[in-house]
Amino acid sequence: MNRTLGVCYYPEHWPEDRWETDAAQMVANGLTWVRIGEFAWSLMEPTPDAFDWGWLDRAIDVLGKAGLKIVLGTPTATPPRWMIDKHPDMLAVDANNQTRKFGSRRHYDFSHLGYREEAKRIARLMAERYGKNPYIAAWQIDNEYDCHDTTLSYSDAARTGFQDWLAQRYQSTDALNRAWGNVFWSMQYDTFDQIALPNLTVTEPNHPHVLAFRRYSSDQVVAFNKAQVDVIRPHTDAPLIHNYMGRITTFDHWKVGADLDIASWDSYPIGFLSDRIEGTAKEKQTYLRQGHPDNQAFHHDLYRAIGRGRMWVMEQQPGPVNWAPYNPAPLPGMARLWAWEAFAHGAETVCYFRWRQAPFAQEQMHAALLRPDAEPAPALAEAAKVAHELAQMPEVGTAQSPVALVFDYESAWAWDVQPQGADFDMFRLAFAAYRGLRRAGLNVDIIHPETADLSAYKLVLAPGLMTISDPFRAALAAFDGIALIGPRTDTKTTELAIPTSLGPDLPNADVSVIMSESLPPSDAIKLQNGGKFRHWFEHLSGTGDVYLSTKSGQPAIMGSGSLRYLAGWPDDDTFDQIIGNLCDTLDIPTFDLPKGLRIRDTETHRFVFNYAAKARKWGDVIIPAAGVHWEEI
Amino acid sequence: MNRTLGVCYYPEHWPEDRWETDAAQMVANGLTWVRIGEFAWSLMEPTPDAFDWGWLDRAIDVLGKAGLKIVLGTPTATPPRWMIDKHPDMLAVDANNQTRKFGSRRHYDFSHLGYREEAKRIARLMAERYGKNPYIAAWQIDNEYDCHDTTLSYSDAARTGFQDWLAQRYQSTDALNRAWGNVFWSMQYDTFDQIALPNLTVTEPNHPHVLAFRRYSSDQVVAFNKAQVDVIRPHTDAPLIHNYMGRITTFDHWKVGADLDIASWDSYPIGFLSDRIEGTAKEKQTYLRQGHPDNQAFHHDLYRAIGRGRMWVMEQQPGPVNWAPYNPAPLPGMARLWAWEAFAHGAETVCYFRWRQAPFAQEQMHAALLRPDAEPAPALAEAAKVAHELAQMPEVGTAQSPVALVFDYESAWAWDVQPQGADFDMFRLAFAAYRGLRRAGLNVDIIHPETADLSAYKLVLAPGLMTISDPFRAALAAFDGIALIGPRTDTKTTELAIPTSLGPDLPNADVSVIMSESLPPSDAIKLQNGGKFRHWFEHLSGTGDVYLSTKSGQPAIMGSGSLRYLAGWPDDDTFDQIIGNLCDTLDIPTFDLPKGLRIRDTETHRFVFNYAAKARKWGDVIIPAAGVHWEEI
Amino acid sequence: MNRTLGVCYYPEHWPEDRWETDAAQMVANGLTWVRIGEFAWSLMEPTPDAFDWGWLDRAIDVLGKAGLKIVLGTPTATPPRWMIDKHPDMLAVDANNQTRKFGSRRHYDFSHLGYREEAKRIARLMAERYGKNPYIAAWQIDNEYDCHDTTLSYSDAARTGFQDWLAQRYQSTDALNRAWGNVFWSMQYDTFDQIALPNLTVTEPNHPHVLAFRRYSSDQVVAFNKAQVDVIRPHTDAPLIHNYMGRITTFDHWKVGADLDIASWDSYPIGFLSDRIEGTAKEKQTYLRQGHPDNQAFHHDLYRAIGRGRMWVMEQQPGPVNWAPYNPAPLPGMARLWAWEAFAHGAETVCYFRWRQAPFAQEQMHAALLRPDAEPAPALAEAAKVAHELAQMPEVGTAQSPVALVFDYESAWAWDVQPQGADFDMFRLAFAAYRGLRRAGLNVDIIHPETADLSAYKLVLAPGLMTISDPFRAALAAFDGIALIGPRTDTKTTELAIPTSLGPDLPNADVSVIMSESLPPSDAIKLQNGGKFRHWFEHLSGTGDVYLSTKSGQPAIMGSGSLRYLAGWPDDDTFDQIIGNLCDTLDIPTFDLPKGLRIRDTETHRFVFNYAAKARKWGDVIIPAAGVHWEEI
Ligand SMILES: [Zn+2]
Ligand SMILES: [Zn+2]
Ligand SMILES: [Zn+2]
Repeated sequence: MNRTLGVCYYPEHWPEDRWETDAAQMVANGLTWVRIGEFAWSLMEPTPDAFDWGWLDRAIDVLGKAGLKIVLGTPTATPPRWMIDKHPDMLAVDANNQTRKFGSRRHYDFSHLGYREEAKRIARLMAERYGKNPYIAAWQIDNEYDCHDTTLSYSDAARTGFQDWLAQRYQSTDALNRAWGNVFWSMQYDTFDQIALPNLTVTEPNHPHVLAFRRYSSDQVVAFNKAQVDVIRPHTDAPLIHNYMGRITTFDHWKVGADLDIASWDSYPIGFLSDRIEGTAKEKQTYLRQGHPDNQAFHHDLYRAIGRGRMWVMEQQPGPVNWAPYNPAPLPGMARLWAWEAFAHGAETVCYFRWRQAPFAQEQMHAALLRPDAEPAPALAEAAKVAHELAQMPEVGTAQSPVALVFDYESAWAWDVQPQGADFDMFRLAFAAYRGLRRAGLNVDIIHPETADLSAYKLVLAPGLMTISDPFRAALAAFDGIALIGPRTDTKTTELAIPTSLGPDLPNADVSVIMSESLPPSDAIKLQNGGKFRHWFEHLSGTGDVYLSTKSGQPAIMGSGSLRYLAGWPDDDTFDQIIGNLCDTLDIPTFDLPKGLRIRDTETHRFVFNYAAKARKWGDVIIPAAGVHWEEI
Repeated sequence: MNRTLGVCYYPEHWPEDRWETDAAQMVANGLTWVRIGEFAWSLMEPTPDAFDWGWLDRAIDVLGKAGLKIVLGTPTATPPRWMIDKHPDMLAVDANNQTRKFGSRRHYDFSHLGYREEAKRIARLMAERYGKNPYIAAWQIDNEYDCHDTTLSYSDAARTGFQDWLAQRYQSTDALNRAWGNVFWSMQYDTFDQIALPNLTVTEPNHPHVLAFRRYSSDQVVAFNKAQVDVIRPHTDAPLIHNYMGRITTFDHWKVGADLDIASWDSYPIGFLSDRIEGTAKEKQTYLRQGHPDNQAFHHDLYRAIGRGRMWVMEQQPGPVNWAPYNPAPLPGMARLWAWEAFAHGAETVCYFRWRQAPFAQEQMHAALLRPDAEPAPALAEAAKVAHELAQMPEVGTAQSPVALVFDYESAWAWDVQPQGADFDMFRLAFAAYRGLRRAGLNVDIIHPETADLSAYKLVLAPGLMTISDPFRAALAAFDGIALIGPRTDTKTTELAIPTSLGPDLPNADVSVIMSESLPPSDAIKLQNGGKFRHWFEHLSGTGDVYLSTKSGQPAIMGSGSLRYLAGWPDDDTFDQIIGNLCDTLDIPTFDLPKGLRIRDTETHRFVFNYAAKARKWGDVIIPAAGVHWEEI
Repeated sequence: MNRTLGVCYYPEHWPEDRWETDAAQMVANGLTWVRIGEFAWSLMEPTPDAFDWGWLDRAIDVLGKAGLKIVLGTPTATPPRWMIDKHPDMLAVDANNQTRKFGSRRHYDFSHLGYREEAKRIARLMAERYGKNPYIAAWQIDNEYDCHDTTLSYSDAARTGFQDWLAQRYQSTDALNRAWGNVFWSMQYDTFDQIALPNLTVTEPNHPHVLAFRRYSSDQVVAFNKAQVDVIRPHTDAPLIHNYMGRITTFDHWKVGADLDIASWDSYPIGFLSDRIEGTAKEKQTYLRQGHPDNQAFHHDLYRAIGRGRMWVMEQQPGPVNWAPYNPAPLPGMARLWAWEAFAHGAETVCYFRWRQAPFAQEQMHAALLRPDAEPAPALAEAAKVAHELAQMPEVGTAQSPVALVFDYESAWAWDVQPQGADFDMFRLAFAAYRGLRRAGLNVDIIHPETADLSAYKLVLAPGLMTISDPFRAALAAFDGIALIGPRTDTKTTELAIPTSLGPDLPNADVSVIMSESLPPSDAIKLQNGGKFRHWFEHLSGTGDVYLSTKSGQPAIMGSGSLRYLAGWPDDDTFDQIIGNLCDTLDIPTFDLPKGLRIRDTETHRFVFNYAAKARKWGDVIIPAAGVHWEEI
């Protein structure tokens, strides 16, 4: 694997006579890739059907001739203002029925077929023009789907699209009424056009109604992306990429990813710690200038899977951002650490966002590799150092992980719709499991919920799956490691009902969830081993073996053979204990890592990352704050 | 009094061949009553004016023949989807002007006269068909008025109805302008149709304007209920019932209750603790799986009064519910305790909600007596135990209470409109007083604000009444126990103005409220006796006797003869002290109850309920957690 | 200076035969001024163009003949209900696109030119009638601009007005696109009528777009005020006044003030502490019944500047108010202390709000000098005492302050639009600096951001200015005291972009802000002197002298000669240290004041105010809680 660095660049923001200087400086600092174009529709097509490609031709030329490989983005996240005149109903509508206006970005409705055609049109024109351009080495489709909560729209376009989608899926309202249990509150429909979007109901709408809308909405993202893929693909051999945003679960990344060649994501460790990771103020203070030590790793592993092994970081935070509630600067060294961590997790390329800080508009306070006055910002030297180090390192692949964690987007929607307890959240649960694995020093693969072969793994975790798919159930039946299933896994049908026989349906293990409890933060279920379940606890019955009990004697882990069902949500210490025991049983070596240290193995090296704000010892090595250490395995 | 148990059942949710089994099992477990029908409009009238009564005929037959008495509900809380096509403007509108859509339940506007006719129509048809059916032993009208905040609507129907109601009440806008003090900010109206609903004003609307809208809205609930009563009554001798929800004050239950024969309510002790009772997280943790130890008692006493002595629990929580922020399971024994407590407070019947857990739709995570797979859930055995115990107990009536507490819905609206301090709430104040009485082990009657005869009582509490009614003032004048009036009682006119002479107007007691203070949680008014006022404090003047002073020498309780005005909101310890002193004076015996124990006397027995999560001693008896003890008096 | 007291009075709220009694009692208690008329439009013009001036003629006559000087208010904050029929689109629209309805006050849109004409019409008619009336000694225009968030409206009138304003300002959309950096997300406009108001965008709108709307909206307030000034001025020689509300920054008070003769403000120390001043519950409890000890002083000093030396308190809190979250009563003595503090800061007149508590409508729980039953409320005696004391005092002017603090409204908007950290707020920053100065016992002048001459001052603070104006930059260049500039000062262009050269541009001092960090409450930047920066920290570069460093060695104060740039937001102790050091350097005497004591010098006297709830020592003098002490200098 040829690891490389890159940067996001906006030639349209700078005088043309600056481009050559910028390009040369990128190359001099060891950058290989430059991403351009993804917000520049208004300059490509200033008025409808009147194009100005000249500036882009020249920018590509300058950058390419300087030796840079170009990722060209389709600009469909920022349609020009005239587009709104052409398609006044293309704007999304929020859950309070308010139109989400022009004036920033992502101002389009995934359900609007007119706009989808426009997106195809501009993508096709770009592909026709630049598909064979030797400098264009990759394509980015759109930018950060769902950023700013843009997957769900309550527009007329969404309503009619949803009704049509329902008609396709259920064929008759009778079938739909049965599937949704609409008998419950006299909610039956007689025709599909009676079915409204599930917002603003008197009390909560029927759960399968909302789940169907979530599925429909995800499908529109998939279709929107595929529409562009289909028109670009014929013109280029370069890989097609989307840059996903962190902790977004509103559309099925597995499905979008299936149409693309590489999964990239935008990694803002400090911003994410501030605005989308659970934790007390004190916990967040510990990692204030480093980001959560497991969040980047989780996303790397997730997107490596979604990219079927090919993963990039398309945007890497280089300094303070502008969009989190508070925006402190990274510790010196973090811009290097984050890049190396990405590479250790299999990233092919890490692009910093952005080359030079824009002095204007919404992101003017977002740091870059250069300051607004074109002087180097702190991250430039760190990037250059990484480039230098990369040149010394052998090319290696990703090591085989002994552990797999299943992650499923449909389940995330299911529990959004039916949390049953205020803080039940699929990402949070999966991330809690992942953090336990990572604190134990394990390489982890995140796997698809329909994974049919688990033979590469010794330990598999499957928390919070709404259902177990047929292929995965077959894989579990054949598995000879240990699978820790649950909590809340396979306790529903695909229509978000409770199966008549009660779930889960585990091959050869008699376990049923007979009652579920959600727990407020003040409460916990104490376990025999001194641990605790928090947030969630399920009462189990069955004839399976009990591997762990609650203090009051109820089953906490129950199953037989290789399958064990976990009846609650362990707190961090309990996850450590459970994972430690399972690894002991399975002869998987684990580590007792000092606070803030994390490790990741490649085929040849063990990487050690110090997320602490202080130096930490790794064996005899002292790793400074924000330091990276590697050693051959 | 013949105490009985029952259950809520939805034959339409299950295969018809299951009904007989279910009915037999109900009877075998000692259940006497079964409530059906209240959400099944779409099955009774699948399309407009085309009826299918067959299934309901058969269900009634099966249940009745099994020996069950049936409560038949009118299904007007869940009009079918076709009704919206017939009356597109029948949906309520929220305070932000958004229509509250179809897709759950209670999707109707109490002001919509077209829908009111529809409700009458279906009720009349049901009454005509089943009024003489021998198995139908009671009727339920609609379901949980105001649940999901449905009393207030800001629709066109509400606006025109309100204008008409204003015209009836005030006859001229001049009278209205004078009554409301509209001179204040040039707010005078020239015609009634200029008067909008009091939402979305620039700053708060005039308080009497809002109070009038609250009165109007309550009147619509009363009228909606009465419309159904009027068409059912001619066809049946069975009692008519509504099932009120807990802690709802948006309509006048006294007035709705006056048109009915029995007041029932839906008792969800754990859900209510979580979502509608004040308390710190720590306090709530103490009773997490039991519910607040005074909340059920308060509602029993309230609804016993509203039912003029006849009270039921129509829905009794049996296990975890689905709708509170967190939904833990009850302690083993609570499903029994709650039932016995209801009986001790005079309930004739307690119906568990529901027979079998629905595996589909919004309430699929709501536990029942049976699990979704038809196996017994924990509450079934507890219900059966209660049934068995009931059979052993003598039939007795409610004991005379020595204490009465006045509760008034209009006052609740007045203080909603004019809280003056962020946490002033009528229910909260009345409940604080009630809790003090109950901690002292007293039987309490809740009484109507126009009660004209207090001779049965030794102690009367009248906190937070906007006005004192003429009959109640006369009763006070004749009272020879002690009445503790206030805080904030009789300090307003019926139009929510301050009376020129300042209130309260207590017979033979010269006390005036000359200034009011609301207090933040950080503050308190210290009293001479070591106690504290919180939330609210009134400066009194007058020539009355001072029974208690603040530490700084202002009157805290002042009055003369049997009437004493309480100038603030005592905290719990202070209420205990004040109530203790009054009971000593009046020779009312009180108890020093261990934490979590509560008592209630019937004519023959003293019942002791242990709401604690640990065993408690009652004399020599050890009552386990969630235990019930009774002894003859 | 002839200091006087007054009161706000509403003759229209009381029987006409009461007016004489009231007037006589006002005079007997030493009141000189009475403000009337500002909410009485519906009585002046009960129906369109049909006037009833008689009652007002008689009220003026009664009050004037009693010896009172009258402030006559234009009633434009409360247009009558018929006005809405005449101009249905005159109501403002909130940020969620909801029309803000009639039913309280301030129900008009500053952008609505039809209503602006109506306001001019009534003002002109009043001026024509009463302009030469000998009893009318001052005019108040409207009432509390922006109260209830009324500056910003998202109406059609606002949108078309904004588009026109933009066309005037930028002349071409090309110029606007360049100025705003609209190239950033393809946000360019082709015509001005494409530019919407900046609400409800998908993510945050472009910052200069919002800043332009804030400037436009402020301009409408200025124009609305000036429209009335222009029609009144020709008819009267009496001073024109507006009564500003506390802590309102949504319009440029400097510009409104420039068209008026006196700046007055409405001082509600206890209400403001509760609803608009930062602080923990514990800090607020300390001053619960006194108000924040620096808040009134800040506003006095601010409005004294805006009034170009002429400042009044038009409404002075006399007891509990009705509108804060909690409304406790003032400590006895505070109604006197607040008045004396206002006089010490240069107030000419202090009017209590209001004469007699209204028993009806929204403010019925707002205390006054008389109770609703016309008996004296506690504040009456305190007012009378102040009147008596005033009569003993010499007439003196305001002392020259050694210190000036720049306050700029445009900067407040800029940081509202681009806070970068959740708790960055211009008022809060300026107030933090002011509080430090005041804790040091200093007289402070608040000065205009274009102040061209600083020679009267030794120390100047300029925190948080978006830009430094040319006149102020020139004044700084000539200044021979010390100016402490920053944080965040002059780091932007007037279009809220980062200047290419990076700011600040300080004459003769090489300092640049190269990176900015916002800090969560859990974090702080430690300084070498033991102090801390909170909320905000800027990384500086340049060749200036470093006067203070962070603990890690970065510049915290840097500059040269008289100009020093402050790189962060000091906490209170750190402000004390920095101000102490600067005053030592500059030979400005400071004080070590006991907690709760504050001082203010006039030309002849030093006033000492005890905001503590306990007695405090000032030298040998013991000042009781809420006490005022003065001594000759
Ligand atoms: Zn981005
Ligand atoms: Zn219910
Ligand atoms: Zn005011």
